[in-house]
Amino acid sequence: MSLMVVGSVAFDSIRTPYGEAEEILGGSATYFSVAASWFAPVRVVAVVGEDFQDRHLGVFRERGIDISGLERVSGRTFRWRGEYLNDMSEARTLETQLNVFEQFQPKIPETHASSEFLFLGNIHPELQLHVRRQLSGARLVAADSMNFWITKTPRELAQTLKEVDALIINEGEAKMLSGLENLCKAARAIQAMGPRKLVVKRGEHGVTFFNDGSVFSSPAYLLDEFKDPTGAGDTFAGGFMGHLARSKDLSDANLRRAVVYGSVMASFAVEDFGLQRLLNLSVEEIETRVREFTRLTHFDV
Amino acid sequence: MSLMVVGSVAFDSIRTPYGEAEEILGGSATYFSVAASWFAPVRVVAVVGEDFQDRHLGVFRERGIDISGLERVSGRTFRWRGEYLNDMSEARTLETQLNVFEQFQPKIPETHASSEFLFLGNIHPELQLHVRRQLSGARLVAADSMNFWITKTPRELAQTLKEVDALIINEGEAKMLSGLENLCKAARAIQAMGPRKLVVKRGEHGVTFFNDGSVFSSPAYLLDEFKDPTGAGDTFAGGFMGHLARSKDLSDANLRRAVVYGSVMASFAVEDFGLQRLLNLSVEEIETRVREFTRLTHFDV
Repeated sequence: MSLMVVGSVAFDSIRTPYGEAEEILGGSATYFSVAASWFAPVRVVAVVGEDFQDRHLGVFRERGIDISGLERVSGRTFRWRGEYLNDMSEARTLETQLNVFEQFQPKIPETHASSEFLFLGNIHPELQLHVRRQLSGARLVAADSMNFWITKTPRELAQTLKEVDALIINEGEAKMLSGLENLCKAARAIQAMGPRKLVVKRGEHGVTFFNDGSVFSSPAYLLDEFKDPTGAGDTFAGGFMGHLARSKDLSDANLRRAVVYGSVMASFAVEDFGLQRLLNLSVEEIETRVREFTRLTHFDV
Repeated sequence: MSLMVVGSVAFDSIRTPYGEAEEILGGSATYFSVAASWFAPVRVVAVVGEDFQDRHLGVFRERGIDISGLERVSGRTFRWRGEYLNDMSEARTLETQLNVFEQFQPKIPETHASSEFLFLGNIHPELQLHVRRQLSGARLVAADSMNFWITKTPRELAQTLKEVDALIINEGEAKMLSGLENLCKAARAIQAMGPRKLVVKRGEHGVTFFNDGSVFSSPAYLLDEFKDPTGAGDTFAGGFMGHLARSKDLSDANLRRAVVYGSVMASFAVEDFGLQRLLNLSVEEIETRVREFTRLTHFDV
């Protein structure tokens, strides 16, 4: 059942066509752990500054998330400011203050070293590898990355990719990482770099999951309200890994189910600003939407 | 079983990153009827010029397509020249010569008036309506349209929409027609205009089908080779309507199946230039790909 995530905890300031929010709790590890907490116990490893308050810690505690690996250091918490225009397919970053995140050296509590499932959020690939090697007994290790590391630290990223089981990135990143425009060819090239499981997030167009030689394509859940895409990718990863940690079943059929749970969690995340919808959820709502998702995609021939 | 299509027959000159072709047989009615011919007998109503040769007629005849409604008049056949750049998501039109198509007045042979299934290709909405009213006994009437008619002839289009059962358009057109960015809201607005069935084509991201209150989303088949997107939308419509004409079953489950057959036919179309792959096919290949499509999308929860 043990699931650990390492990544960022941040304060986000967001503007979308539907409103804005100032300095709300965000970051990859936050979205991941809140989403995963609906499925399995989660341990978060991250760093925050002195400005991180009890009410912020309370968000994790209320979801039963283990924050013994959430380090607090002097300085300010990571801040990001961005906006989404028109169809909200891409964020425009207005300001990034790395603050305490710049010197982040993940420290893994002894109790966490036996975690069976590990998600390496979007941090320097050397740090990802460092964490990965400390959890040598993990049954499934998944990683995220981004354009910045693909172009700036290709050698370090290549080494990390050799040692992870799954890579969860978006379509543009998959094409950039492989240098190939065709998604099938890009996937095979990335699988040859190490991760036999590749989840390609395609935003409002769903997810394509390459698992060795098997491929699963799933559309996105259709929403009437779509307010804020921030954290959708990490929320997907949280639902995906959370379901796997809960079920402990790494069969292809169950990995496909995990893609559906991830998609459903992401569909909740974007319905409101920040974490609001993910906190204000119920197991019944999740299961109801999974059934709706099944109806949305079902056919027989 | 009777399926009739009215639309364009053209000579296309196409350039894509994978090659080029000069003056090859194309047009909406051509792609539609060749695709549909794999499922049911098809009657095509269109106009060509004096430069339309026996070898072009032979393409229709070899597929068993009824060309008694293919009128031949003095002048030159419709010509289109276009190119696709990079990811091939959009065509850039380099030249359009309407030629004999400019004065096209569809003439429906008496034998065709009893057709049970009708596809109104992308022509002036007044002509669509004129044809539609002559087939008053049709069980299912589907129409295509485009940005040009949405902006230039909104009143005529509105009248046509009132009298068709299904509209098959792409995502950008659905948003333009409804004036709404959100696809769910756009679909409800369009259904309120008349067509209770709305198929939204999303290119490489698949299809979303709104059928009264039911919604079906399906990804696109994943291809290693993707050479020429020309005609993919009309090919989809041909597979969709062809399967319906063959099965004569308008249940939601069978309409979803029709979406899958349409998607599979479109996936063949784009594998090679023009009609090449659609002509060089077999029923076994189609059924094999339908099974692959099922594997690509299948999950159970």
